[in-house]
Amino acid sequence: MSLLQDGHLLPLAGIAEQRQEAWERQSVYVAANSALYQRLWDGKAPPRRLEDIAELPFSDKAGLRLAQPASPPFGDYLAAAPEKVSRLHRTSGTTGQAMNLAMSARDCEITEIVGGRAQSLAGLKAGTMVVHCLNYQMWMGGLTDHLTLERTGATVVPFGVGSTELLINTILETGITAISCTPSYPGVLERVIAEKFPHLTPRDLGLKLGLFGGEPGIDDPAFRKRLSGTWGMQPRNANYGVSDVFCNFASECAHDTALHFVAHDVLHVELIDSDSGTPKEVAAGNEGELVLTHLSRECQPLVRFRTGDIIRVENTDTCACGCAGFRFRVIGRSDDMVVVRGLNMFPTMVAAVVTSFDELSGDYRIVLDAPPPYDVLPVHAELAADGHDDGALTRRMEERFKQKLGATIRVKIVPHGTFPRTEGKTKRVIRSYQ
Amino acid sequence: MSLLQDGHLLPLAGIAEQRQEAWERQSVYVAANSALYQRLWDGKAPPRRLEDIAELPFSDKAGLRLAQPASPPFGDYLAAAPEKVSRLHRTSGTTGQAMNLAMSARDCEITEIVGGRAQSLAGLKAGTMVVHCLNYQMWMGGLTDHLTLERTGATVVPFGVGSTELLINTILETGITAISCTPSYPGVLERVIAEKFPHLTPRDLGLKLGLFGGEPGIDDPAFRKRLSGTWGMQPRNANYGVSDVFCNFASECAHDTALHFVAHDVLHVELIDSDSGTPKEVAAGNEGELVLTHLSRECQPLVRFRTGDIIRVENTDTCACGCAGFRFRVIGRSDDMVVVRGLNMFPTMVAAVVTSFDELSGDYRIVLDAPPPYDVLPVHAELAADGHDDGALTRRMEERFKQKLGATIRVKIVPHGTFPRTEGKTKRVIRSYQ
Repeated sequence: MSLLQDGHLLPLAGIAEQRQEAWERQSVYVAANSALYQRLWDGKAPPRRLEDIAELPFSDKAGLRLAQPASPPFGDYLAAAPEKVSRLHRTSGTTGQAMNLAMSARDCEITEIVGGRAQSLAGLKAGTMVVHCLNYQMWMGGLTDHLTLERTGATVVPFGVGSTELLINTILETGITAISCTPSYPGVLERVIAEKFPHLTPRDLGLKLGLFGGEPGIDDPAFRKRLSGTWGMQPRNANYGVSDVFCNFASECAHDTALHFVAHDVLHVELIDSDSGTPKEVAAGNEGELVLTHLSRECQPLVRFRTGDIIRVENTDTCACGCAGFRFRVIGRSDDMVVVRGLNMFPTMVAAVVTSFDELSGDYRIVLDAPPPYDVLPVHAELAADGHDDGALTRRMEERFKQKLGATIRVKIVPHGTFPRTEGKTKRVIRSYQ
Repeated sequence: MSLLQDGHLLPLAGIAEQRQEAWERQSVYVAANSALYQRLWDGKAPPRRLEDIAELPFSDKAGLRLAQPASPPFGDYLAAAPEKVSRLHRTSGTTGQAMNLAMSARDCEITEIVGGRAQSLAGLKAGTMVVHCLNYQMWMGGLTDHLTLERTGATVVPFGVGSTELLINTILETGITAISCTPSYPGVLERVIAEKFPHLTPRDLGLKLGLFGGEPGIDDPAFRKRLSGTWGMQPRNANYGVSDVFCNFASECAHDTALHFVAHDVLHVELIDSDSGTPKEVAAGNEGELVLTHLSRECQPLVRFRTGDIIRVENTDTCACGCAGFRFRVIGRSDDMVVVRGLNMFPTMVAAVVTSFDELSGDYRIVLDAPPPYDVLPVHAELAADGHDDGALTRRMEERFKQKLGATIRVKIVPHGTFPRTEGKTKRVIRSYQ
């Protein structure tokens, strides 16, 4: 395998040779064994040089989605013999059909080491006891993420979801000081503490480090501030991944809240314009869709896979933490992108404005009742439980939106409680015309 | 580590030298690092020869139970630095205080390989897809057992407990043909199939292999016959372990339903008379309490640990499956043993008689209202839902009991539904005088 010892600490330029060798092995393997790529490449051989990879067409989620029911359960991009599959994870299917993810023992090991790099950057280390509270049922966030936590040298307690009262007792009884969970889980813990442990405050649990993943939200500075204020813990976005590629290949560190890419030895990165597919340089300030290629993967190798995630590159220098990978923020999903008079708008950008109004609950929807193009963005925003519309709220929101983002919104204020509270991922962009 | 490649296939006599070397390393390590054993051994050095191990006193569960609250969370038998602890499992505490089990990365690896030997003997192999339906929440049966299943080369799907409808769909959609679960779980699946999938029978799920663990019950021939009849699957007792020692170190194979011991390279076995502590030979026909010593364990090494499990050795020859470990059956727990006129009686022996009567539900309790000695065994047995006591049932039961087991019982028939249905382990011996 092409995995290098502490590969995330090595500058990209310094590992070019290893990456080229990995690509030579991997591209020959994919061409020989992946029916999906044989089809997609029309039988043509992939370029020998990794730097020429843009000669190949993109692959995408839609292609994988079609491949699985046609060749169950793993699709014809399964490039290894079925006997090699060691672990089957399944995605929740919240944004479409559930996907069956196959990993060989070697795929598992690389996945765990790479995820461990991310969790280490986020602050986990030997001597810390961490409880892992993501769901162990099929989803990669459970079992495989657990094993990434162990790779940091920490003591890891498998817990999963539910049984919050038992969790609180377990934290108190064992000396757990770190939690790995979704950003929404501390809120659940706070409620259970208030109800069942009235003599305790969240701080009394003694958690010092929060490793978050599985949901967006942790990048909101107000939310982070509230978390550290209430709990006395350092919140870290510790677990960014794309389940078809790697469950975790980026996290923040104590020095920089941008996500650090930790997988250059096993993953090739491209940045493209999401509309045109035109390549963009991975350079500070550039925005684009993240496109990934496995340099080492046995079961379901992907080449030039469009992740659908739109990122902004913040920095390509080595961070003070030692990580040499580029740093970035996820600014949205290409599916959620709405172009308004040439400006790329994402729900997270709308959220930043909506949450700045105390009168609002923070919940909102972008409701598109006609196909593009758009010259204004229609937003439905919900009043807070004690929120009051003084009649000028709509105008003030429209002004702030224009000032912050340069686009025009058309706001409709809706009563508190209009939008259902969802577990899992909330769909923010409603295309009612479809 | 002293683990040998396929160590369970090597005759005990052939690995004596490796075992002796392992004991030399391990005994020195324990003497130097385990405060509990320093105390228990009164500072005396352990014997150099493994064959002289009986010079040392026994250790037991009670000692571990006292050690944990005194030196939380792992007790002073933690022989490694806390930074070495990679995984914390917790027992359910159904038979007393919950125990915190510590494993280093090396302890985890040995545990997984040994458990994998057991699951392989039970029939799991590369090319089979197995779903693991034990609880992943803290308990060793979840995460660590999952990893033992992967060690067989099979494709393993993490599932856990609950969401039975989702499980049935997952089995149907992915090609799963083996299930790892408790003996009581197929009954739950049958009920959900009847309720939610009326067009399906259990056989339609296509399960061919059932790997059972976590609860007793699978050794009842009538239960096994019903399982294979209803499901068309081979049931296997695949997962016998003692959580303080190894989560799984014995299973049956296709040739012999007795449990095969698979850990002679890392675990030393003694058999003793449970009352007197007198050693008994590990030889066919002998019964006694299983006493175990870790030959390789970093975190919580145990020496001469009384498991409390009473076993009968069935065979010490190499089995047709290739396993060279001795074969045995668990006949009871020393806590549950009731001596009746010199005969050792266990709940499982009572169960075998009770379940042979169609008039009874199969549920029963041994109710002791006075301290020993006992000349008769008082048994409360419950009628089946459609069961009828013709007036002679008590007498017929007493006769069959005398004939099968040689002891006298005094039976009280109680109405159907008298005993509460319990999840987890049912307490069969009630000492009402205590």
